[in-house]
Amino acid sequence: MLEGLMQDFPLTLQHLRSRMLGVNADSQVSTSTPLGLRRASFHELSERIDRLAWALKKLGVQRGDRVGTFAWNNQEHFELYIAVPCVGAVLHTINIRLFTDQLRYIIDHAEDQVIFVDASLTAVLAPLAQHLKKVRHYVVIGADRDDGALPGALSYDELLAEAPSEPFAYPQLQEREAAALCYTSGTTGNPKGVLYSHRSVALHSTAALISDALGLCRQDKALVVVPMFHANAWGIPHAAALCGADLLLPDRFLQAEALAKLIEQERPTIMGCVPTIFADLLRYADSNEVDLSCLRNAACGGSAVPKQLMRDFEERHQVRIYQAWGMTETSPVATYSRPSTEQASSEEHWDQRARQGTPLPWVEIRLVGEDGMPVPSDGQTSGEIEVRGPWIAAAYYNDDSGEERFDDGWLRTGDIATADGHGSLQISDRVKDVIKSGGEWISSVALENELMAHPDVLEAAVIAKPDERWGERPLCCVVLREGAHAGAADLLEHLRPRVASWWLPDEFAFISQVPKTSVGKFDKKALRHSLEDGTLAGRVSVRRA
Amino acid sequence: MLEGLMQDFPLTLQHLRSRMLGVNADSQVSTSTPLGLRRASFHELSERIDRLAWALKKLGVQRGDRVGTFAWNNQEHFELYIAVPCVGAVLHTINIRLFTDQLRYIIDHAEDQVIFVDASLTAVLAPLAQHLKKVRHYVVIGADRDDGALPGALSYDELLAEAPSEPFAYPQLQEREAAALCYTSGTTGNPKGVLYSHRSVALHSTAALISDALGLCRQDKALVVVPMFHANAWGIPHAAALCGADLLLPDRFLQAEALAKLIEQERPTIMGCVPTIFADLLRYADSNEVDLSCLRNAACGGSAVPKQLMRDFEERHQVRIYQAWGMTETSPVATYSRPSTEQASSEEHWDQRARQGTPLPWVEIRLVGEDGMPVPSDGQTSGEIEVRGPWIAAAYYNDDSGEERFDDGWLRTGDIATADGHGSLQISDRVKDVIKSGGEWISSVALENELMAHPDVLEAAVIAKPDERWGERPLCCVVLREGAHAGAADLLEHLRPRVASWWLPDEFAFISQVPKTSVGKFDKKALRHSLEDGTLAGRVSVRRA
Repeated sequence: MLEGLMQDFPLTLQHLRSRMLGVNADSQVSTSTPLGLRRASFHELSERIDRLAWALKKLGVQRGDRVGTFAWNNQEHFELYIAVPCVGAVLHTINIRLFTDQLRYIIDHAEDQVIFVDASLTAVLAPLAQHLKKVRHYVVIGADRDDGALPGALSYDELLAEAPSEPFAYPQLQEREAAALCYTSGTTGNPKGVLYSHRSVALHSTAALISDALGLCRQDKALVVVPMFHANAWGIPHAAALCGADLLLPDRFLQAEALAKLIEQERPTIMGCVPTIFADLLRYADSNEVDLSCLRNAACGGSAVPKQLMRDFEERHQVRIYQAWGMTETSPVATYSRPSTEQASSEEHWDQRARQGTPLPWVEIRLVGEDGMPVPSDGQTSGEIEVRGPWIAAAYYNDDSGEERFDDGWLRTGDIATADGHGSLQISDRVKDVIKSGGEWISSVALENELMAHPDVLEAAVIAKPDERWGERPLCCVVLREGAHAGAADLLEHLRPRVASWWLPDEFAFISQVPKTSVGKFDKKALRHSLEDGTLAGRVSVRRA
Repeated sequence: MLEGLMQDFPLTLQHLRSRMLGVNADSQVSTSTPLGLRRASFHELSERIDRLAWALKKLGVQRGDRVGTFAWNNQEHFELYIAVPCVGAVLHTINIRLFTDQLRYIIDHAEDQVIFVDASLTAVLAPLAQHLKKVRHYVVIGADRDDGALPGALSYDELLAEAPSEPFAYPQLQEREAAALCYTSGTTGNPKGVLYSHRSVALHSTAALISDALGLCRQDKALVVVPMFHANAWGIPHAAALCGADLLLPDRFLQAEALAKLIEQERPTIMGCVPTIFADLLRYADSNEVDLSCLRNAACGGSAVPKQLMRDFEERHQVRIYQAWGMTETSPVATYSRPSTEQASSEEHWDQRARQGTPLPWVEIRLVGEDGMPVPSDGQTSGEIEVRGPWIAAAYYNDDSGEERFDDGWLRTGDIATADGHGSLQISDRVKDVIKSGGEWISSVALENELMAHPDVLEAAVIAKPDERWGERPLCCVVLREGAHAGAADLLEHLRPRVASWWLPDEFAFISQVPKTSVGKFDKKALRHSLEDGTLAGRVSVRRA
């Protein structure tokens, strides 16, 4: 083998720090507070990151140690995003919406040495603290609201104030070293940790700068609504450090009205957000006079984005939503949907927009059928998405129970999709949510999207109902809008011209809300439980033909 | 050390091949021929690349072997760009404009096993062939013009036609393996080889997709005027394979009229080109009715781009030229100039446009003074540019004579610049061209730019003239436009309000043309020789005060 003669320059987050200190020193991070926006330049942050590095050293944090964060999207969380990996430790972002026993499990499993917690969240963590024997220190961010809930906790501001003002001597890191840890909010079994390397974070955040993907650039201001406590906030904070985009962090102020006002006032050009929050924002913007048109690129992911939501946003508010797809195990962004046709009127265009898009450069995707063999990209044949690339997980952290997810260098995602001739994915379902009826598959997601396009329907979640003859049949759980009164027969007639006849449901359940997981996705496991134990409300049978 | 648990996915050009076969299969490459454009889809190319891989095997090409190309920008050259590294061999692009003894030196030094040569270029290579003992095969591209100049040469088309049609089994490559080799056209000593790795090419071409840099995307059509026989053609062919941009390759038809007609007809959105060709194109477009406005991003580099050239293009032809900076040793793109102010009218904007820009993500730059210590980025203090990053050379191929270029992990570029507070570079000179006058530096490039802004001046090259009192003084070699008649006194008055008084030259030389190097740069070494041996024409002394 003949080796190239290029520099052995490691892809680590220390380069992000050097850009914040140098070429991107003037860029700004602005954080929502009850008293308005708090602003700091990347230059100011760089000094604070050095002080934070000293503080981590003082707290005894060693190379490879896990350092937890339990925080909203704010300036200090961003400082921790950079400082913790740069000193060689591992940033463990803890999902603040997890249930108590999950929190306890992952903090124990990760063996966090120190946890940084927002003052507004100490009350959530406090009841657990007595059980968390391995955590040596709690550090409270924003001490103005510290309520003493965590006895002995240190103050972030005090630690920084006490730290030396001279530059910190960062260790020489290797790019394969662990940089960050995030647990999947799996709906079965214990949460599983994905251990990102410096290299994977570096390449994933570089991909966020690519024109065909998010295309973040120096001129942008990015409103990061997608939580920093989960899956690297899609890599947007890292990408901003790299390219010098301004960051706009809403902290805990995520209500539609607060977001709409923030957008009007600060005029971000980029926004990253899950569909449910976009739906809230759309409702607010429709009934209030709000100008959202500053957003040149509203990236949406986490679950499939209803076509109608994109259309309404674009036609009524001049905001174009682009879909992205991925999961915690894929850093998370694996595909991005930039449709190749630009005529917003054509049906072809909207069909493309409803897709989850093509794999980013350096990500490779194949669809695999039930027999384990790849299926063609013909726009018709469904298969489970398998993915590989430099920012895709190879294993879970200290946990062999997920081994079946890793198939000879490919990650089995559990998502079912078709792909068109360009490799653009259309996800039809989760493997565990698909309805297997008479030997064929019915996509629960497709039914949900058609139902949610009905003007009376606020939310729809479709689950499988055991059926003697067909194996499974769809049961459509529907939340109506306030004051709406569509019945089962109306919804059936709405579906009839839109889906194959054997997809038509036999039963609806009119419920008051769809239960959600800790990251805001529809919790179909909870619905299936209600169905099993007979507590599912509002069930109405219909005759299909 | 705690290792991350991400996939060990190597960054090799095999991923580019898989994208050409898959998600980018519909993208097109179009090549200029005497009979019009020849077109092929990436899908068709993928099949031909497989056949080419079989052909390389048949020719006995082994892993790590060097395979030379001696070709213009055309489809086959692009096929070689992908196939040769994908089989594990090294693509050695030979600069067709080198002088005979340089050609012989580098082909010998690289130990090329096979050379692929355009039929239109066999006559250039033929006189050398008898001396090139190590070359086992010549393969002629485009046999329609094969004139038998290379006895025993094989035909590219025949080799492909004879190859098996089944898919080729590519070897598993490592990302540090050598992928490509290019020799610098150094003006002193022997040419030196830069041996790019798969990793360096992968990362450099990914950087070409970044919005703040070239920002190549799937919707683009890239006109590649910058030669594929030098410095990876700025990575544009690789980047197109990665993102699915169409390629427009002009082969040997590089005259301004041919290019202008190609642009009008094919409407490329991106163009990469050196300043001299842009200047030719501007002259042609000014005197003919040509619509160049399809170009959204015209990237220019290779030498400093005169501000007036950019201004004329933008104001008269709605084409925005962006500067890039780099060299063979930097893959080549190291900085890109995307000004942060968008008001084209303001002086601040044009001052920014005259800069060579900020380092790309993953490239780090520092300026070093004569004492070897870094100088501040204050927009005033000059220093030699030193650069490091994953696509920067660490050494020359089998050549220790350039060791002084590599300074503790940094590449010494030989370019002198200032940097502003954002790290945006303004290159003032080459270390060897700067004029050292009375202990201060006079920038030859700055004087040239001011002179070339004079309406009568076509080209200007400023060299140092030995001076007893000052050490060196500037001597301005000027080529006037046809029919223009500015004299030394006129040019001195033109310079007087524009530069420091001690920069004003004592002498002009009115010459008929500036000698050029093999890559089209001003050959100041040749001018200095003429000065030394007394053959420099048209010298006129002036009194400065």
